[in-house]
Amino acid sequence: MATPLNIGMIGYGFMGRAHSNGYRKVNNFFETKYRPVLKAACARSADKIKGFADTWGYESIETDWRKLIERKDIDAIDVCVPNNLHKEICLAAAAAGKMILCEKPLSMNTEEGEIMCQAVEKAGVANTVWYNYRRVPAVTMAKKLIEEGRLGRIFHYRANFLQDWTISTDLPQGGTALWRLDVDAAGSGVTGDLLAHCIDTAIWLNGGLKDVSAMTETFIKERKHQLTGKVEKVGIDDACAFLCHFNNGSLGLFESTRYARGHKALYTFEINGEKASIKWDLHDLHRLEYFDHKDEGKLRAWRSIHVTDHGGEHPYMDHWWVPGLQIGYEHSFVHHVADFLKSLETNTPCEPTFRTALETQKVCDAVLASAKDGKWTKV
Amino acid sequence: MATPLNIGMIGYGFMGRAHSNGYRKVNNFFETKYRPVLKAACARSADKIKGFADTWGYESIETDWRKLIERKDIDAIDVCVPNNLHKEICLAAAAAGKMILCEKPLSMNTEEGEIMCQAVEKAGVANTVWYNYRRVPAVTMAKKLIEEGRLGRIFHYRANFLQDWTISTDLPQGGTALWRLDVDAAGSGVTGDLLAHCIDTAIWLNGGLKDVSAMTETFIKERKHQLTGKVEKVGIDDACAFLCHFNNGSLGLFESTRYARGHKALYTFEINGEKASIKWDLHDLHRLEYFDHKDEGKLRAWRSIHVTDHGGEHPYMDHWWVPGLQIGYEHSFVHHVADFLKSLETNTPCEPTFRTALETQKVCDAVLASAKDGKWTKV
Amino acid sequence: MATPLNIGMIGYGFMGRAHSNGYRKVNNFFETKYRPVLKAACARSADKIKGFADTWGYESIETDWRKLIERKDIDAIDVCVPNNLHKEICLAAAAAGKMILCEKPLSMNTEEGEIMCQAVEKAGVANTVWYNYRRVPAVTMAKKLIEEGRLGRIFHYRANFLQDWTISTDLPQGGTALWRLDVDAAGSGVTGDLLAHCIDTAIWLNGGLKDVSAMTETFIKERKHQLTGKVEKVGIDDACAFLCHFNNGSLGLFESTRYARGHKALYTFEINGEKASIKWDLHDLHRLEYFDHKDEGKLRAWRSIHVTDHGGEHPYMDHWWVPGLQIGYEHSFVHHVADFLKSLETNTPCEPTFRTALETQKVCDAVLASAKDGKWTKV
Amino acid sequence: MATPLNIGMIGYGFMGRAHSNGYRKVNNFFETKYRPVLKAACARSADKIKGFADTWGYESIETDWRKLIERKDIDAIDVCVPNNLHKEICLAAAAAGKMILCEKPLSMNTEEGEIMCQAVEKAGVANTVWYNYRRVPAVTMAKKLIEEGRLGRIFHYRANFLQDWTISTDLPQGGTALWRLDVDAAGSGVTGDLLAHCIDTAIWLNGGLKDVSAMTETFIKERKHQLTGKVEKVGIDDACAFLCHFNNGSLGLFESTRYARGHKALYTFEINGEKASIKWDLHDLHRLEYFDHKDEGKLRAWRSIHVTDHGGEHPYMDHWWVPGLQIGYEHSFVHHVADFLKSLETNTPCEPTFRTALETQKVCDAVLASAKDGKWTKV
Repeated sequence: MATPLNIGMIGYGFMGRAHSNGYRKVNNFFETKYRPVLKAACARSADKIKGFADTWGYESIETDWRKLIERKDIDAIDVCVPNNLHKEICLAAAAAGKMILCEKPLSMNTEEGEIMCQAVEKAGVANTVWYNYRRVPAVTMAKKLIEEGRLGRIFHYRANFLQDWTISTDLPQGGTALWRLDVDAAGSGVTGDLLAHCIDTAIWLNGGLKDVSAMTETFIKERKHQLTGKVEKVGIDDACAFLCHFNNGSLGLFESTRYARGHKALYTFEINGEKASIKWDLHDLHRLEYFDHKDEGKLRAWRSIHVTDHGGEHPYMDHWWVPGLQIGYEHSFVHHVADFLKSLETNTPCEPTFRTALETQKVCDAVLASAKDGKWTKV
Repeated sequence: MATPLNIGMIGYGFMGRAHSNGYRKVNNFFETKYRPVLKAACARSADKIKGFADTWGYESIETDWRKLIERKDIDAIDVCVPNNLHKEICLAAAAAGKMILCEKPLSMNTEEGEIMCQAVEKAGVANTVWYNYRRVPAVTMAKKLIEEGRLGRIFHYRANFLQDWTISTDLPQGGTALWRLDVDAAGSGVTGDLLAHCIDTAIWLNGGLKDVSAMTETFIKERKHQLTGKVEKVGIDDACAFLCHFNNGSLGLFESTRYARGHKALYTFEINGEKASIKWDLHDLHRLEYFDHKDEGKLRAWRSIHVTDHGGEHPYMDHWWVPGLQIGYEHSFVHHVADFLKSLETNTPCEPTFRTALETQKVCDAVLASAKDGKWTKV
Repeated sequence: MATPLNIGMIGYGFMGRAHSNGYRKVNNFFETKYRPVLKAACARSADKIKGFADTWGYESIETDWRKLIERKDIDAIDVCVPNNLHKEICLAAAAAGKMILCEKPLSMNTEEGEIMCQAVEKAGVANTVWYNYRRVPAVTMAKKLIEEGRLGRIFHYRANFLQDWTISTDLPQGGTALWRLDVDAAGSGVTGDLLAHCIDTAIWLNGGLKDVSAMTETFIKERKHQLTGKVEKVGIDDACAFLCHFNNGSLGLFESTRYARGHKALYTFEINGEKASIKWDLHDLHRLEYFDHKDEGKLRAWRSIHVTDHGGEHPYMDHWWVPGLQIGYEHSFVHHVADFLKSLETNTPCEPTFRTALETQKVCDAVLASAKDGKWTKV
Repeated sequence: MATPLNIGMIGYGFMGRAHSNGYRKVNNFFETKYRPVLKAACARSADKIKGFADTWGYESIETDWRKLIERKDIDAIDVCVPNNLHKEICLAAAAAGKMILCEKPLSMNTEEGEIMCQAVEKAGVANTVWYNYRRVPAVTMAKKLIEEGRLGRIFHYRANFLQDWTISTDLPQGGTALWRLDVDAAGSGVTGDLLAHCIDTAIWLNGGLKDVSAMTETFIKERKHQLTGKVEKVGIDDACAFLCHFNNGSLGLFESTRYARGHKALYTFEINGEKASIKWDLHDLHRLEYFDHKDEGKLRAWRSIHVTDHGGEHPYMDHWWVPGLQIGYEHSFVHHVADFLKSLETNTPCEPTFRTALETQKVCDAVLASAKDGKWTKV
């Protein structure tokens, strides 16, 4: 018998939509004991949250997140607000015994994140952070190939996340829509927003980082504030790149920017192992590139695997359509919900937990410190 | 104010799922006056349709499609059954004054199709056929580019739909899952199943066909029947290719097969015009390839357009996520539902209507006749 | 010890350059007993052939090909003139006991070609036709993979050769530079010029053709003559497409045109076998695409083989640079020369011989006849 | 009238072949006043240099490079020996008043290089360093696009050079064939061998570097010496990556390795400007990827320019075949020779001169120093 899992959503932006879509779709494609119910959506603006709730079918609304957390009919809190609000909400939710699904990055910094980890661990509540790219089927398959030992000793890991949406000097900063450009709301620029994704995947696939040497740049030094119209100094990093050593002895190269003309959301990674290599990119997320040295000599080549097959071999794909027909970005969230629900059933953590996601926070902190000091910095 | 549109679904297979997903999702992403309500699902097997209804949230079930059609609380009938049942159901639905959304191909042949067209026209009911690929954003954009006159005089149109799932001689034919291999249920093999898609798109983009010269082949002559286990002659065409002249003077080449090792659902088309050319393929459906001769000489090249931008320029994409993040196969059905709902609002036909889809049927008939006779055949 | 092989070249155009480059380079990269010496070049215009001879290092010139053929110091005649002159020159050269390397297509038609075959066979002179694409390493490797039985039973063969250089109505026809547009000099349009390449490769890789159904089109009906300025009817086929059955039971699709905007010299072919498939295209000629069904399920994919490796496995590549560094178009001619020289050493035919190339002529004739009659035509 | 330019080649390895091919071919494709004559080839082993001279048509041989330099009939010395011999030979050649074409990298380090620059400048002899990738047509076109101001302010430059040929622990180091693995002969590992190419192109396209933060790694610590069989410490860097700031304010990322499984000679670079971006990779060297923001919104996309067109717009390509037909790796050397000959005619430097190439040496030194110290290092 299905057990309802009542969701309380805080926020209604891009991620609010992506998560809601995940909750709504999951049981059309996955059989789970726990079944999400869109119980309540919450935001300060009653108008806006009303519209959001209507669109997605939330049964009720709240305008004060503290009230939402207090409600007895809410099982899980979904945190989709700017980064500077994560800590307070998560601490309150944990204290109220609610499960928490928190948007990434976990926190503004390691210190905050550690407090949040302790809170959920003390409360013993299920918790996860929405690093959704782990659950793109091609990325999940990369993980499997590595776990099966196909790559052998790893020599290199490189990843980047390239966008081009902030090149115009006319773009304002701050406000609801553009909080990602406001250092007070976001904590950092591309480091927390984009590199955090690259780092989470990297740690998952290749283990922890030892030390980093980073540089950041703010190409446009001043921008108007979206609300006040006042020209203010830009506090975020527009671009960030770093070298690193992984604990397993491999070398890493990471780069992120919002000034790479021609790239919209080009998250790519590549891993070079002794025996095989893997590449992936988000712009064609349904493909995994794979090179295996043990292939017969004259046929040795990069394969472009169209990760859409059935038969249990391509992760998650048995739940969707037929071979050859691709799914997209949104499905990574559906998979995350499916795995979260299954984790409740099996009483196991849904990775990445707060504790796991804290590792990414530590790397981000080391990266920002290294960029500031101009020194190699231990993670 | 939203007006409910009560859907009665007949069938629960691959297409039953794809359409249901379309109805369920549409209003999370599109604002429409009419809003689909999953009122009833119908199939002969009570068990199976019960499971399907539970998964998708249909409010009720029926095991006799005639009863479904008689129900006063049903506004629209969705026909997701094998081709040989389309006519009878559609005639009954039209007679009952129901709107009809019929899976492609429209009918077993032109004769049947003509009767069906007359039925819906006489009844004056809204009708459409699910040639979903028209509403993949990249394909819709191809249509726009052509309408804007960017290609100029058209010289060539080529399309193919390549699969490889029937190569094994062990694969049985017939039964519920494999009715597409049973000529009595399907009417034809790849011609009606796959080429029909290519033809519908071609007529939409490039106008009508004048004449065809075709060949078909059945590579594996006998197969076991899935239900009876009896070895029987294979009646369908495993592969079909044809040459044609379009009314606009351009030359066409079409090919379809289920014996193209390495291709799962590779629907591709290319149009060569005097001024520009366009290419598309279903395996990377979010991209449109475009070559424009008026580009500056040294920079003249094929562009790989990632059709994911916002701002009103990439069809349908404003409704989804952010630039760079791709949608997939299922979204073409969501778009079809959205357009159908809007057509009700504006009281205009939702293309392709039965009448429009009949043109594809005529081409299929000419193709099969030409393949049989070995002669150029008028459409 | 090296033995000189004195070459007498007739012609100085595109192919004259390509062949001369082959003769000049071959022994920098290949060790052969016979070594080409650029003995004499011949054309009606003394000025032009003098310049050509200087550029390429021919030791002498002639302005009458009959004199060239009579010269005792010439071992082999290379025929690089318009198609309508092939027969006469080859018959004379054979009568004089010269080896002949004839540019493709062999002849204006089958009848002429048969006479030419008999002439070289009677004379017992070494002969070959420059279907150079056989010796692009990726194409040669395709042949090897097929011979090794990797593809199994063949179901489909498709090829096209797409260009876009005659779209402008201002382009004149005829004259030295544009003889390919003059039906009297060329015999046909794209059929003999481009499809002949596709057909030669197809026969080599997939065996003979049984019958064809073709269509041709002349999009621009009249053009000025380059020399006279007079507007005349265009006699060539601008585009040609045909369906066919191969003797091995597989289905074929061929298309060629000079009106495919965006394609300069896009010769592509694809073969679908029961066990594996192969694709190639001339625009990236150093790559071979390969799909092998026996690959492990989840890793089954198209491989893009970069055919540049050493170690004896990638045909011809041991003779060039280092792995990863590509060669280009011209090298196919170098390989043809190398193989011709080696065939002299081993006293074996250098394929395609005149007799082999005649098969392509027969298919071209059947294609043109079918296009004229609108009927399936036996080869 | 043509003036002979007598070449004295020192070395007979990979580069000796590539340069010789350049000299031999250049005047078949380029008209120049000065015309290379392969006068003499030199190496310690008389047998080996005799074979080489025969293959390439050198008129004579020498076994002592000092004698070669003394010869009156030699105009230009080509230096194709291990890096540790560059300085001595170049100083002697300059003193003898010979022109010098020196294989890259210029020298073992900046100090040596400075001495070499002063020597050629004092002697007033023509000099150039074979950074051949500048003259791949697609790369030359990238330079033109930048010079035309199409990219605007530059934000990012990234390049890598990835190989995989030293992964096996069984590979020996040292000796004639493997001197690149011997730190005494090569000076460094991938830094001088591969990154030097990336750096030369980067300086050419994007200007000088200000400072670097680098890391190097030697994955396999000991290898047998090829000649002695003795296991010795590996002194070279197997991999090297660095961050940098360019003088123009853009950020740079460079990486090179011989441990990237699946890549043979994958040199790639990408430049992101305010207005446009460019990408190139050596594995498909005849293509340039280009994105221009000023393209119409819905058609904005990466273009894959097939750099094979005639008409004066694609650099160097007018000299080769016809549009669509690609050239390869070796042609970059032919172009370098052509430009060197033209520079003699116009009495201008042939870039990169020794002085220009010294800039790359300075960056390499800074990179190796930074990797050693773990600090940001000024160039």
